[in-house]
Amino acid sequence: MSEVIDTPPNTRKPKPSSWPRYIEAELGFRDHWYPAFFGAELTEADISDHHGDEVSNIRTEVLLGERILFRRVNGKVYAVEDRCRHRGVTLAARPECYTADTITCWYHGFTYNIEDGKLATVITDPQCPHIGRIGLHSYPTEELAGIVWVYIGDDDPPPLAADIQPELLEADLTVAPFGWSKVVNSNWRIAAENAFDPGHAYIHRNSELVIENRVPTVLSNTNIKRGNGMEVVDPEEGPIGVRIERAGGTQVWEAVAAEGVSIGARFRPGDPGAMEGMVPDVSIWLPAGVTVDPFPAPGIMQFEWFIPVDRGRHRYMMTWAKRGLTTEAQRQEFFAELEGSWLNDVPEKFNHDDVFAREAMAEFYDRGEGWANERLYGPDAVITAWRRLVSHRGGKIQTPAHAWADEETA
Amino acid sequence: MSEVIDTPPNTRKPKPSSWPRYIEAELGFRDHWYPAFFGAELTEADISDHHGDEVSNIRTEVLLGERILFRRVNGKVYAVEDRCRHRGVTLAARPECYTADTITCWYHGFTYNIEDGKLATVITDPQCPHIGRIGLHSYPTEELAGIVWVYIGDDDPPPLAADIQPELLEADLTVAPFGWSKVVNSNWRIAAENAFDPGHAYIHRNSELVIENRVPTVLSNTNIKRGNGMEVVDPEEGPIGVRIERAGGTQVWEAVAAEGVSIGARFRPGDPGAMEGMVPDVSIWLPAGVTVDPFPAPGIMQFEWFIPVDRGRHRYMMTWAKRGLTTEAQRQEFFAELEGSWLNDVPEKFNHDDVFAREAMAEFYDRGEGWANERLYGPDAVITAWRRLVSHRGGKIQTPAHAWADEETA
Amino acid sequence: MSEVIDTPPNTRKPKPSSWPRYIEAELGFRDHWYPAFFGAELTEADISDHHGDEVSNIRTEVLLGERILFRRVNGKVYAVEDRCRHRGVTLAARPECYTADTITCWYHGFTYNIEDGKLATVITDPQCPHIGRIGLHSYPTEELAGIVWVYIGDDDPPPLAADIQPELLEADLTVAPFGWSKVVNSNWRIAAENAFDPGHAYIHRNSELVIENRVPTVLSNTNIKRGNGMEVVDPEEGPIGVRIERAGGTQVWEAVAAEGVSIGARFRPGDPGAMEGMVPDVSIWLPAGVTVDPFPAPGIMQFEWFIPVDRGRHRYMMTWAKRGLTTEAQRQEFFAELEGSWLNDVPEKFNHDDVFAREAMAEFYDRGEGWANERLYGPDAVITAWRRLVSHRGGKIQTPAHAWADEETA
Repeated sequence: MSEVIDTPPNTRKPKPSSWPRYIEAELGFRDHWYPAFFGAELTEADISDHHGDEVSNIRTEVLLGERILFRRVNGKVYAVEDRCRHRGVTLAARPECYTADTITCWYHGFTYNIEDGKLATVITDPQCPHIGRIGLHSYPTEELAGIVWVYIGDDDPPPLAADIQPELLEADLTVAPFGWSKVVNSNWRIAAENAFDPGHAYIHRNSELVIENRVPTVLSNTNIKRGNGMEVVDPEEGPIGVRIERAGGTQVWEAVAAEGVSIGARFRPGDPGAMEGMVPDVSIWLPAGVTVDPFPAPGIMQFEWFIPVDRGRHRYMMTWAKRGLTTEAQRQEFFAELEGSWLNDVPEKFNHDDVFAREAMAEFYDRGEGWANERLYGPDAVITAWRRLVSHRGGKIQTPAHAWADEETA
Repeated sequence: MSEVIDTPPNTRKPKPSSWPRYIEAELGFRDHWYPAFFGAELTEADISDHHGDEVSNIRTEVLLGERILFRRVNGKVYAVEDRCRHRGVTLAARPECYTADTITCWYHGFTYNIEDGKLATVITDPQCPHIGRIGLHSYPTEELAGIVWVYIGDDDPPPLAADIQPELLEADLTVAPFGWSKVVNSNWRIAAENAFDPGHAYIHRNSELVIENRVPTVLSNTNIKRGNGMEVVDPEEGPIGVRIERAGGTQVWEAVAAEGVSIGARFRPGDPGAMEGMVPDVSIWLPAGVTVDPFPAPGIMQFEWFIPVDRGRHRYMMTWAKRGLTTEAQRQEFFAELEGSWLNDVPEKFNHDDVFAREAMAEFYDRGEGWANERLYGPDAVITAWRRLVSHRGGKIQTPAHAWADEETA
Repeated sequence: MSEVIDTPPNTRKPKPSSWPRYIEAELGFRDHWYPAFFGAELTEADISDHHGDEVSNIRTEVLLGERILFRRVNGKVYAVEDRCRHRGVTLAARPECYTADTITCWYHGFTYNIEDGKLATVITDPQCPHIGRIGLHSYPTEELAGIVWVYIGDDDPPPLAADIQPELLEADLTVAPFGWSKVVNSNWRIAAENAFDPGHAYIHRNSELVIENRVPTVLSNTNIKRGNGMEVVDPEEGPIGVRIERAGGTQVWEAVAAEGVSIGARFRPGDPGAMEGMVPDVSIWLPAGVTVDPFPAPGIMQFEWFIPVDRGRHRYMMTWAKRGLTTEAQRQEFFAELEGSWLNDVPEKFNHDDVFAREAMAEFYDRGEGWANERLYGPDAVITAWRRLVSHRGGKIQTPAHAWADEETA
């Protein structure tokens, strides 16, 4: 079993000061694009048969502690701060839209242009000098790969492509126009580390999809912990991230109690051979995304995100894509396969174990002294590489004050 | 639609330092009289057929963070601190009254005189030297206009009349001996501002009583925002408050989407003409009351209060009165009208929208940075006048420490 | 009734600084033995027919803020910190035991020896250099009087006998191999004071067992408040505690409203004479135990504990013993009497009133300013003696940081 070996230098407990800005970044980093929701989840603004009484086609989400209201006008999604400048109430509490491109506060009739956030009129005081001078923060948005992306930052946004997994931008790719999304009760960093953790595959050995031999479980190779099984991608301009090199083979492990007191590990019974060609590349990208290629089946790529909601929660989103589909029939077949199988089975029979792990870590990291008291091991070398990279390149740290920031548009 | 106009001086964002003591006064102000409950809600002390086992005729309320126990003896209501001096438990947790004018702690038998709070005996130690020397804080009370008022303060109380809406003291007035009362989840200041807010009438345009044409909705006139549509009442001795001058006419507004992108406002369909003579005077008074005259119907006045409970809650009370009733038959007819209609309909079909607004503001003001980040507009001039007045004349700020204060009676 | 007497020196309000370390010790004191649970509640480790999928024979408890995992191997109970050294998750969230004497973390397969806490292997990295070098904190345990005791401290433990009520160690004693246990929502100090409080018997006058004349209620004699009705036991080595001297007679008091306003007290109707010989000795012992002898019936002793769980909770345990039983038949008869009557009736028909009192005090002491604002009376002299003794002799104060402490085993 275990021999006592001299601790090599790279497994010494790293001081928290090795990634100080990562530890500070409870709410994530500003000046980045984040996925907000799937575009299909927000229909076109419609005021045809109602006048503020029932408005269903707005959507609100909290990202990085900021509550944002989305509305689609002439096909384009616009996003503004969901908090009236006047007395701070949530516009979405009783949404009123008298025109397609405005949102009116239910309390005093402050009416904002949805496209730039400016105060367009005040119903209870049409001569109000604030009109045209103040407004809601307006968030740049883009729609790509079936997802509405929103830029949370102060300056002009960088190209969206700098904040997306590069695989998602491949020309040959068909991305599903739908996916899965859920708010999980752990900080976003815990989620990122879980998603990218080479050793965490252990938890999946009992995931239903593994037991059903529908997906493999792959453990890290030992090269990773030497620091030479990964690639840090750190160009002047993004995407910025870390790639884990493809492991040497399919390894489906099971703990085994051997004679006496020792414990070993062996390939899991079943037919791991059938999974050949299924050893995925895994990579993680700023600000909050992972690529697993292939997964859950040969030829399919899984994309995941873990977007900060607040200190104790993140939104966990995932979707899938396939290369080389050339006809509409092929694409529809792919979407049908996802909807018939993976769309529910992957999150509910595989990644739900990750949700369990993230929430189980919250006590230690989110409420306790985990960052100072954790004791990392070899395969975590990819996690510490990610932490260092994020601490260095993440940019401006989001703070609660950003969510309350004052803003003039004039 | 909106023209950009140079911001005139009086719409500049006021600094929070314009009303510093108001912002501090989360728990309200000491040395004032507050309404506690309707007198009909507390019957005479009765120990005829039980001995401490079941005592229903006490009542406890939390005001300004202080838990107070009320008991009616020989018609008069007495009030003492509801926390045993010995080990701090709530007497009302298991009320024991062996005589009409005492309250005994269920834990060790500390027995207090309800009239002055003094420790009268200790059942488990009748020779205890604390007897007659220490006691519960005893609160002055008065009963007026069907309401039990309690003085929360340190010195001799001022006349009750200094802390009541002056209209309530009119000689010719018949006040209902009942009313409506509910704890609302927002700070008392948010409630006061909502009740007195000229622009907030916008929220009521869809209130059921308005839609049913049973009450009007009146918007502020533009004079108010010039600062000359109100009167600050600031005498040496109270009542101290602010009156909004009667608006020029009944204005029931509805937002209208005009051609293109602009939004206007127009009189609401219906019969606002029928509401003539229904433009109310509205006034607000220290420490925590409002008068709306007339409302909800010609000849009826509505009185409201928003009494601090704790940092995040206030008690919202209301009752009604009528002038010129000379016979008992007239009074009974008025009470019957209230009970048959307004007593439930006003809070449930009109002011429930105010409750919604108060709770919606709590995130911004009670838990966030609202006081520093709000952006007031013209009609809020009456609110800022109220804030300045309260900050100047409110008196001693209540703090959590007051609720724990030590007290000797000897 | 009450005469006003000059306050003698010993009833002046003691300053909190008279027992400063007691007030600091919200989480209790380290370097002591505490009862964790009844030994019968943890069966022998068993891995015969499962392999980590369902493990019921572990047990976790939180004591002094530390979450501890217990497992019984070859008859002996072992205890380790229930938090993986790697990423801090609770092992008990998904317990995995592949051998009788190990516990494996469900997340990455870190496997610890249950006997000394050392990291035995890492299933996902069998060459991990941490193996044998780091580990979980391992807690000394002993099993005595049917109870599993755990030592929470940093140095070598003192003899268990130093931290146990001395009566429990009498040679002639038969202790029940079972008892009653419940987590109560108050701090442990509030519980200790309630259990040892001479005046609190007042609360029991209406307890069902008293009304049924099955147990007596005894009030303190006045000698106690002079300071000469108790004995402080403070040897160089433990047990350390305070004994209340046997009161002069059975006194079952009832409050009585006499003519006019005064309140007296009298013997309760019933048959207190039948209770003669039932005046108990009561004593309290560091760190957290009380003896009541006899109770609830002649010849039976009741032992109680109030073990800190966290700031706002303690575990309330109790069991019973009898002297002089010489045959197994006598012992079985005693156990049958307990199970048939006292095991449920004492906590549910008598001490539940203490639970009520402890939770009622929590507002004042745990969340408020009780330690500074309480006003003790004569019989509380035994409580202040206890406070002074604990402040002086309790030892090292437990802090939240202890629960996060790092530990090397190599």
